[in-house]
Amino acid sequence: MAGTGVFEDLAAGEDTFKFYSEGKWQESASKKTVNVVNPSTQKVQYKVQACTQDEVNAVFASAKVAQKAWAKTPLWKRAELLHKAAAMLKEHKTPIAAALVKEIAKPAKDAVTEVVRSGDLISYCAEEGVRLLGEGKFIMSDSFPGTDRNKLCLASKIPLGTVLCIPPFNYPVNLAVSKIAPALIAGNAVVLKPPTQGAVSGLHMVHCFHLAGFPPGLLSCVTGKGSEIGDFLTTHPSVNCISFTGGDTGISIARKAGMVPMQMELGGKDACIVLEDADLDLVAANIIKGGFSYSGQRCTAIKVVLVLESVADKLVELVNAKVAKLSVGMPEDDAQITPVVTESSANFIEGLVKDAETKGATLCQAYKREGNLIWPVLIDHVKPEMRIAWEEPFGPILPVIRVKTVEEAIHHCNASQFGLQGCIFTQDINKAMFISDAMETGTVQINSAPARGPDHFPFQGIRDSGIGTQGIPNSILLMTKTKSTVINLPSASYTMG
Amino acid sequence: MAGTGVFEDLAAGEDTFKFYSEGKWQESASKKTVNVVNPSTQKVQYKVQACTQDEVNAVFASAKVAQKAWAKTPLWKRAELLHKAAAMLKEHKTPIAAALVKEIAKPAKDAVTEVVRSGDLISYCAEEGVRLLGEGKFIMSDSFPGTDRNKLCLASKIPLGTVLCIPPFNYPVNLAVSKIAPALIAGNAVVLKPPTQGAVSGLHMVHCFHLAGFPPGLLSCVTGKGSEIGDFLTTHPSVNCISFTGGDTGISIARKAGMVPMQMELGGKDACIVLEDADLDLVAANIIKGGFSYSGQRCTAIKVVLVLESVADKLVELVNAKVAKLSVGMPEDDAQITPVVTESSANFIEGLVKDAETKGATLCQAYKREGNLIWPVLIDHVKPEMRIAWEEPFGPILPVIRVKTVEEAIHHCNASQFGLQGCIFTQDINKAMFISDAMETGTVQINSAPARGPDHFPFQGIRDSGIGTQGIPNSILLMTKTKSTVINLPSASYTMG
Amino acid sequence: MAGTGVFEDLAAGEDTFKFYSEGKWQESASKKTVNVVNPSTQKVQYKVQACTQDEVNAVFASAKVAQKAWAKTPLWKRAELLHKAAAMLKEHKTPIAAALVKEIAKPAKDAVTEVVRSGDLISYCAEEGVRLLGEGKFIMSDSFPGTDRNKLCLASKIPLGTVLCIPPFNYPVNLAVSKIAPALIAGNAVVLKPPTQGAVSGLHMVHCFHLAGFPPGLLSCVTGKGSEIGDFLTTHPSVNCISFTGGDTGISIARKAGMVPMQMELGGKDACIVLEDADLDLVAANIIKGGFSYSGQRCTAIKVVLVLESVADKLVELVNAKVAKLSVGMPEDDAQITPVVTESSANFIEGLVKDAETKGATLCQAYKREGNLIWPVLIDHVKPEMRIAWEEPFGPILPVIRVKTVEEAIHHCNASQFGLQGCIFTQDINKAMFISDAMETGTVQINSAPARGPDHFPFQGIRDSGIGTQGIPNSILLMTKTKSTVINLPSASYTMG
Amino acid sequence: MAGTGVFEDLAAGEDTFKFYSEGKWQESASKKTVNVVNPSTQKVQYKVQACTQDEVNAVFASAKVAQKAWAKTPLWKRAELLHKAAAMLKEHKTPIAAALVKEIAKPAKDAVTEVVRSGDLISYCAEEGVRLLGEGKFIMSDSFPGTDRNKLCLASKIPLGTVLCIPPFNYPVNLAVSKIAPALIAGNAVVLKPPTQGAVSGLHMVHCFHLAGFPPGLLSCVTGKGSEIGDFLTTHPSVNCISFTGGDTGISIARKAGMVPMQMELGGKDACIVLEDADLDLVAANIIKGGFSYSGQRCTAIKVVLVLESVADKLVELVNAKVAKLSVGMPEDDAQITPVVTESSANFIEGLVKDAETKGATLCQAYKREGNLIWPVLIDHVKPEMRIAWEEPFGPILPVIRVKTVEEAIHHCNASQFGLQGCIFTQDINKAMFISDAMETGTVQINSAPARGPDHFPFQGIRDSGIGTQGIPNSILLMTKTKSTVINLPSASYTMG
Repeated sequence: MAGTGVFEDLAAGEDTFKFYSEGKWQESASKKTVNVVNPSTQKVQYKVQACTQDEVNAVFASAKVAQKAWAKTPLWKRAELLHKAAAMLKEHKTPIAAALVKEIAKPAKDAVTEVVRSGDLISYCAEEGVRLLGEGKFIMSDSFPGTDRNKLCLASKIPLGTVLCIPPFNYPVNLAVSKIAPALIAGNAVVLKPPTQGAVSGLHMVHCFHLAGFPPGLLSCVTGKGSEIGDFLTTHPSVNCISFTGGDTGISIARKAGMVPMQMELGGKDACIVLEDADLDLVAANIIKGGFSYSGQRCTAIKVVLVLESVADKLVELVNAKVAKLSVGMPEDDAQITPVVTESSANFIEGLVKDAETKGATLCQAYKREGNLIWPVLIDHVKPEMRIAWEEPFGPILPVIRVKTVEEAIHHCNASQFGLQGCIFTQDINKAMFISDAMETGTVQINSAPARGPDHFPFQGIRDSGIGTQGIPNSILLMTKTKSTVINLPSASYTMG
Repeated sequence: MAGTGVFEDLAAGEDTFKFYSEGKWQESASKKTVNVVNPSTQKVQYKVQACTQDEVNAVFASAKVAQKAWAKTPLWKRAELLHKAAAMLKEHKTPIAAALVKEIAKPAKDAVTEVVRSGDLISYCAEEGVRLLGEGKFIMSDSFPGTDRNKLCLASKIPLGTVLCIPPFNYPVNLAVSKIAPALIAGNAVVLKPPTQGAVSGLHMVHCFHLAGFPPGLLSCVTGKGSEIGDFLTTHPSVNCISFTGGDTGISIARKAGMVPMQMELGGKDACIVLEDADLDLVAANIIKGGFSYSGQRCTAIKVVLVLESVADKLVELVNAKVAKLSVGMPEDDAQITPVVTESSANFIEGLVKDAETKGATLCQAYKREGNLIWPVLIDHVKPEMRIAWEEPFGPILPVIRVKTVEEAIHHCNASQFGLQGCIFTQDINKAMFISDAMETGTVQINSAPARGPDHFPFQGIRDSGIGTQGIPNSILLMTKTKSTVINLPSASYTMG
Repeated sequence: MAGTGVFEDLAAGEDTFKFYSEGKWQESASKKTVNVVNPSTQKVQYKVQACTQDEVNAVFASAKVAQKAWAKTPLWKRAELLHKAAAMLKEHKTPIAAALVKEIAKPAKDAVTEVVRSGDLISYCAEEGVRLLGEGKFIMSDSFPGTDRNKLCLASKIPLGTVLCIPPFNYPVNLAVSKIAPALIAGNAVVLKPPTQGAVSGLHMVHCFHLAGFPPGLLSCVTGKGSEIGDFLTTHPSVNCISFTGGDTGISIARKAGMVPMQMELGGKDACIVLEDADLDLVAANIIKGGFSYSGQRCTAIKVVLVLESVADKLVELVNAKVAKLSVGMPEDDAQITPVVTESSANFIEGLVKDAETKGATLCQAYKREGNLIWPVLIDHVKPEMRIAWEEPFGPILPVIRVKTVEEAIHHCNASQFGLQGCIFTQDINKAMFISDAMETGTVQINSAPARGPDHFPFQGIRDSGIGTQGIPNSILLMTKTKSTVINLPSASYTMG
Repeated sequence: MAGTGVFEDLAAGEDTFKFYSEGKWQESASKKTVNVVNPSTQKVQYKVQACTQDEVNAVFASAKVAQKAWAKTPLWKRAELLHKAAAMLKEHKTPIAAALVKEIAKPAKDAVTEVVRSGDLISYCAEEGVRLLGEGKFIMSDSFPGTDRNKLCLASKIPLGTVLCIPPFNYPVNLAVSKIAPALIAGNAVVLKPPTQGAVSGLHMVHCFHLAGFPPGLLSCVTGKGSEIGDFLTTHPSVNCISFTGGDTGISIARKAGMVPMQMELGGKDACIVLEDADLDLVAANIIKGGFSYSGQRCTAIKVVLVLESVADKLVELVNAKVAKLSVGMPEDDAQITPVVTESSANFIEGLVKDAETKGATLCQAYKREGNLIWPVLIDHVKPEMRIAWEEPFGPILPVIRVKTVEEAIHHCNASQFGLQGCIFTQDINKAMFISDAMETGTVQINSAPARGPDHFPFQGIRDSGIGTQGIPNSILLMTKTKSTVINLPSASYTMG
C-alpha cells in the first residue's frame, strides 16, 4: 500500500504525502494540500503538499549546488546509481502500481507493466549515457580552406544544469523517468513537478531514487496546483531545460519560457490510413489496440481512421466485432475500458460524440456513460465539419472517415494542427514508402499502430505536437550542451603513424 | 559601386535600395525608407525600404510554397546552387566590400576578406549538408529488452520549414551566410532581416543567390526598422526557426517566440587568463588581435584580461607598445581602429571609460574621441566594482584585472552573465586542461585569442551568451528535425550474410 | 587520339606508351613491351612497358618519401588537387573514352560515361575525406568502471602508407579512381598496376592527376605482365594496403600477402529472385539491363535468374522479346552487345553454353559467335548440375532456373561460393524484407538489378566475393589506421560549462 | 582449487583437464595430453588434452550451426547471457586466479585483478554491442551527383561467422575475453585456442560461459600443441576471422591465412621519451610500473627509455632507488618480480643482458638468475648497436639510451620494426603534441606509461606490432561485416514533415 513499508517516510498522515526536497521528505510550510481524486470513485483518494514559492526556490537552490558536484562524478558511477534506482523500482512495483490504479484508473496489469518498463528504461538510459557522454569529437582545423592543422578542438557534451520535468497524468511514472534518467546520466539536477493525478505514484517512484542513494538536492519533487506554481516553475531563472509532456499548456509554456532548450510533447491526432490491399484483420487488431488501450488516453493513440471507401464496410464490421468484446469497468478488475481521468474530460468527450451525432455521423455502438466511465464507440461516416475529425478526444471514442483516395487521406492528416505519428496499412512496398514520405508527422508506422516505443527509437512531435526529439539517446543529447577546448599550436603539426 | 553593374536591379534611385521578395527586387508599398548612416561621416549613406507587415506576410507565404518544392530537390542539386552562389559572391566581392566600408566602417581589406571567407563557408556548408542529410539512422528494435527484431526504424533529418535569419551589423555578410547556407542546404526557406547598418551589403549578398538561380520565394530579404517589424517577424506563425546574432534583444526574442528551435548568439565578455609561465609576446600579440581588431566590435573579442600579478607589469608594457602602433583612422584607408558603428555606441563606450577612470582605474593611453572614432585604450588596474569589469564595450577599450591566483581569474570568468568563449595562456599542459575544464564558457582557447573559426568548429554561447550550437555541421542539424518511418514486420527477421 | 595533344608525353612511339614513375613518363630499362589486343579486331592495338623489378622498387621508394610529405599536407589542399584531377578527367574524356573502346570494346557512349562518372567520384571522395579525416574521437576515461576522468584520448585516422591499386579490365578508369582517390585524400601514396587491357586508358587517367599537379612519386603507374611482376608487387614489403578488383587471383593474393589491410572485390554470381507478385515488365527490363549491359562483363551483373514456376513462362517471354532487340556489333557503333574481352574468355563462355545445352537446358536464342563477339542467349530450364548454374560467365549469356518455392531460390543463392549482391522482385513489403534478410550476400536490391552505385553506398562482397567494404566513405576508412594521443592528467578533471 | 566445485566437470583425472566442444567437456580421442609447466617450479603443474584435427573439425562444424541460430537471437538476449558470464567469472575469481599463479607465475593479487577486470570488460562489451549493432545507416541516393532520392539503403553490421581466438600466455583470461566477448555480442561463434601456459585458467574461464547458458557449439575451446594444430586452425576454411595476440607467429599466420579479417597484436618496443622539463619523480614511478610490472612480460611494457642527457643521471638514480625496492620471489607471495614464463624465455633475456654488457652498457644492478627467476636490471648507456636497443626482452630488464636531442629519440622510436605505443614525459603542451604527432606508433601516452586500458580506448599496433584496431567498440566492429538492403522506388520520393 502507498506510504507504507519502505515508503513510510513519504506519509504525512493518512493518504497524505510529503514532497521531496534536499534529499528529505517534507511537509509544506503552506499547511495546505491538493486533492487527488480517484477517477473511478470520483472521491478524494490522496492528498499532496501545496508547495510554496519559497519551497520551490529552495529546491532550485539545492539543485544548483548538487549539480556542480554531480557533474564531477565519473560516468560509470552515475550509471551505477541509476541501475540501483531501476532495481528499486522493479522491486517495489506493487505499491506503485496500486497507486496508479487509484489515481488514474489505469488497468491493474498495465500499471505493473508501466513500472517494470520504467526500470528497463532507466537502465538502458544509464548505459546509453555512458557511451554518448564518454565520447566527444576531436576536430582538426585543416579541413577548412586556408587553414593548417594547428588548432585541435576537443568537443564534448556537458550538462545543462537543472532540468524541470513535467510529466502528464497518463504515464506518471514512465514519462517521468523518461525525463529524469536522461537528465541525471547527463550530469544534470532534476526538479520534478508531477501531475496532480499521478502525483502519489510519482512520489513513490522518486523514493526509489532516494533509496538508490542519489545525493541530496540532485533530484527533488514539488507538488501543488499548476495554477499556483506552474508559471513560477517554468519561468524560474534557475531552470536550464524544460521537459514537458502534456496538452496545450505546453504552447503557453514555450511562449513564456526564456532562452532554454525545450523538449515538449503535446497533443496528437494520429491517423490510421487503411489502403485497399491492407490485411484488414491486422488493421482491426491494431485499431483496437491503438485506439482503445487505456481508454484512448494516450498521446500516440489512433485518433482518426482514414479508410478507402471500398474496404470501409468490411473494416468497420471487423472493428465493431472487436469493440463488442472490450471489457468495460474498474481498473482494479483489469477492465480494458476504465473511467477517464476527470469529469471534465468525460464531459469534453461527450461533447465530441454529441457534435458528431448531431452532424450526421453514425455511432456504431450506443453511447453510454456512468460517472467518468464511457463505453467505447466507433463513430463512422465522420466528415471534416465535425469536431471529432480534428480534435483529440483522449477517450474511448474513435472516428472513421471514409476517403475516396489516398491523397485525400494524406491531405486530412497533413491539415491537422498536430503532427505526432501516423500509421499506414498496406502490403505494397512502394505505396508504403511513398505515403510515409508524404505524411507530415514525426513518425509513420507501416503496418502497425503508432507507438512511442521501443524507447530507443526517435520520438518527436512536429507542428503543435511538440518540439525536441525524444527517445533515449535523443533525450540525453537534448539535455546537454557542447563544450570545446581548442589547443592552439604555434605551428602546423600532422600526426604520423 | 553598390547598385551598379550586375547589381543594378537593386537600385531604387540614387543610394536607395529595393527589398527582395518572391524572387524579385521590389519597392515597398509604404513609400518609406530607412536611413543607413555612415559611421565615419555620420551622414546618411544609403536608404533601404521600410517594408510593411503585408509585405512580410507575402514573403512568408511565398517561402512556404517554395520550401515544399525545395525539400523535394535532390541534395546534390541544392549543393550545386550553393556552389554557384559562393562563386558569385567571390566574383563580386569588390562592390560588396565597398558597401561594408561605408555602412559599418570595416577596414577595407577586412571587408574583402569577409566576403571571400563567406564564399568558402557557403561551399563548405553545401558539401557538409550533402553528407549530414544524405545519411540517417537505421535503428532496429531488438536492442531494447523484451523486443524482437521486427521493427525497423528509418530515421533521417528533414527541413524545419522557414528559417528567420537576423544577422548583426558587425559581419552582415558572413553572419548572414552562416545562417542562410545551412538553412538552404537543409531544405528550408529563408527570410532574412539584415541589420540596418549592413543592410546594403546584405542585399547585395542576397543578389548573388538570385544570380545563382535559386527558386523565387525560397530566399527573401525584408528591410525596415526593428521597432516596427521586429516583433512581427519574430512572432510570425510561419516562422519555424530563428537564427539570431546580436545583443540583448535576443533574450526578449526568446521570451516572445513560440515553440520553435532557436539559434541565438548574444553578447560575450571573453576573458583572457594569463598565467605566470605564459609566452608574454604571444599573449600580447593575441591581446592586440583579439581585443582591438575591428575596434573591438566582435562577439569573440577579448573583453577582459585577467593576468597574474607577477607578470602583469611586463604584459601591460608589451601590450602598450603594440597599442601605440595601431593605426587610427578611416576604413577606406584600412586603418586598424575605425569609427564605431553609431554615435550611441560611442557614447556608451565613453561612459564605461569614464566610470573606470572615476573609480580609480589607470588609462594606459589618453582617452581621445572624434565623432564615432575612439582611440584605443588599455585600462589597467580594473576592479570588480567598475562597470567595465562586467559589461561588453564593443569598442577599442580593454580592461586589465590583475589577479592573485588562477582561482580568482576563473571565478571572475564564471561570475559573468556571459559564457561565450575564453582563453588561457600557459605552457603547462596540466594547467591548460584543468583551467579549461573549470572555465564555464562554450569554448576555451588554449594559447590563442577567442575565435569563431574555423567555421566547422562548434561555436556556442552559454548562459546569456546564447543557445544552440553553431559551426557548420551544428547549424545544419539545428535547422532540421527527425522524421522516422518504422517498418513493422509480422514476425522477427534477422539479417544474414 | 590516345597519346596526342595534352597526352603526348605518354607516347613512346606509335601506339606505345610509357609508364609513370617519380612524376615522369618513362620507358622501361627492359626495352620490352606488353601487347594490348583489341577485342574487336583481335589485333595488337597498343603496347605498354614491361617494367622491371628494379623499376617497381624505385616506384615504392619514391612513394615512401612522397607519402611522408603528403601526410603533412592540409586536408583542404589534398581535396583541392583532387578536384583539379577530376576536372582534367572530365575535360579530356574524349581520348580516354576512345582508348576504352579500343582496349576493352566498351560501347562508345558507355566509355564516355565511365570517364565522366569517375570525375564525379573523385570530387565526392575529396569532400568526403575532408570530413572523415578532419574529425576524430575525443574519448574520456570515466566511462569504464573504476576509472576517473583523468585520461583524454584523441583518436584520429591517419594514412596507411602506400596503397597498391589493381583494378580490373572492365572499368579500368572508374575502378582505378575508386581506389586512387580514397587512397590519396587519406594521405597515402599510390602504386597503380592497371590491367593489360585497360592499361592505356589507365595511363591517360593517371596523366590527369599529373596535370593536376600532384607531387612526384605520390602516384605512380607500372605496367607489365601480371605473371612477371604480379607477385613481386603484391608481396612487396613496402605495400601497406592492397585494393584489388578482379577474379580468383584475389584469393591467392590474399594468401600470399603479408599483414596488410586488403580490399578485395572478386567474382560474383548475383541472383535475381522473381516472386509471383512481381511487376514482370520491371523485372524483364532489369534483367536486360542487369544481365546484358557491357555483354555481361560486370561484377554486379545478374548472373542467374531464379523465378517462381508460375510466372516463369511469362517472364521468359518478356525477356526474350527484349533480347531480340539488343543490338550486336562493334563498340565504335555503340552496339549493346560487343566482343568479350579476350578469346579465352569467349571460349570459356562457349564452354558454359555447350555444357548447359548438353545437359538439357533450353537455349532461347541460337548460339552464335564471331571471333570474340557472342550473341546474347537466355538459357532456360537450367538445373543445379549444370556449370552455368554456379559459374560466372562474364559474357552475354544468362541462365534461368525455375524454382518451386522462394526457399529453393534463397537456398540456391546462399549455396554459391560467391556473395556479392542479389536482387528480389516483389511488391510485398514483408516478403521483400524477409527474403532480403535471408539472402547471404553483401547487398540485396529490392526491385532493381544489382549495382555498385551510387558510389557512396556501401559495397562489399562476402565469402569468395571479397573482403573489405567499398563505397566512398568505407574505402577512405579502410585506407587509414587509428592513431591515438592520450593526455594523462595528474588527477581527475571534469569539464564544466 | 582448479577443477573442483563448480568446475569439477573439467577434470579428467588429477590436474588433467578436458577440452570444451559442442557444449560438453570432453577427453581427446588422441589419448594424449600436453604438459603445462609451472614457471616457478619448472615442473609439470597441469595437463591438457592434445586435440586431434578431427576434433578441431567437429568444433568448427558445430560452431557453424550454432552461429546461424545465435545470429537470430535478439541483441538484448545476447547481452543478457554475457552479463551472466561476467557475473560467473567474478563469482569464481578465486580458483581461476589460483591457476594463473601456477601456470604463468602471475603475482597473486594481479591474478585476481585480471579475472575481475575481465568481468567488467565482458559487461561493457555487451552493452556496447547492443548499441553498435542495433543501429545501422539509412543512406539515401540523392547525395550523389545525378541521382534522385529513389534508392534507400539500409546498412547494418552483421556477424562474420566463426572467430578463431588465440590469446597469449601473459593475460590468458583477459586477452581471451577481450576477443570472445566482442565476437559473441556481434553474433559470431568462437573457437578458442588458449596458450599452453594459461590453458587451464582459460578452460575455467570458458566454463563460466558454459554456466551462463550459452548454446552448445557457440563457444568451444580446443587445446594442444601449436606446432601440431596451429596451422590447421589458422588456415581452416571455416575460420571467418582471426583474433590473435602474441609474438612473431602472428606474421606467419597473416601470411598463410586466407581472405579473412585479422586482428593481430604482436610485439612491441614501447619507448619512454623523457624531456628535460619532465617531472622526474612521475617518470621514475611510471618506468617502474611500466617497465617491471609482471616482470616486464607485457605488450605495452616500457621497453626502452630515451632520456635527454641533461636529466639522465638524475632519472637513472631515481629509478635505481625504486628498482632496489622491488620484491623478487614467488607469485604465491605476491612478489613484484616473479619467474618468467619459460626457461627459453629466461635464456633469451639473459642473452640480451650479456650482449649489452659485452658491448659496454652499464648494468645498474648485478645480474642474477635462479631458474626462471631473473632479478630486475636497469641497463644504462645502451647504444644502437646492442640487441637490447631493438629487441623485445619480455623480462625484467630495461635499457636506457641517453639522447642528445628529442629528434634523436623520435628517430630511434620510429626506426623500430614495432609500433605499438610510446610515451613522452614533458610539462610543455606544445612539445607534448608535436612529439606525439611525430612518433609513429599506434598510441602515444603523454605523461604516463603505455597501457592498453581503459578497455574502451582504441588500441592498435602498427608496422610489425599488428593489424586491426582493438578496444571494445573497435573489436566489435572488426568482427562484423556490412549487409545492405536497398529499397528501389519506381520514382523519386522525398520525405516530408
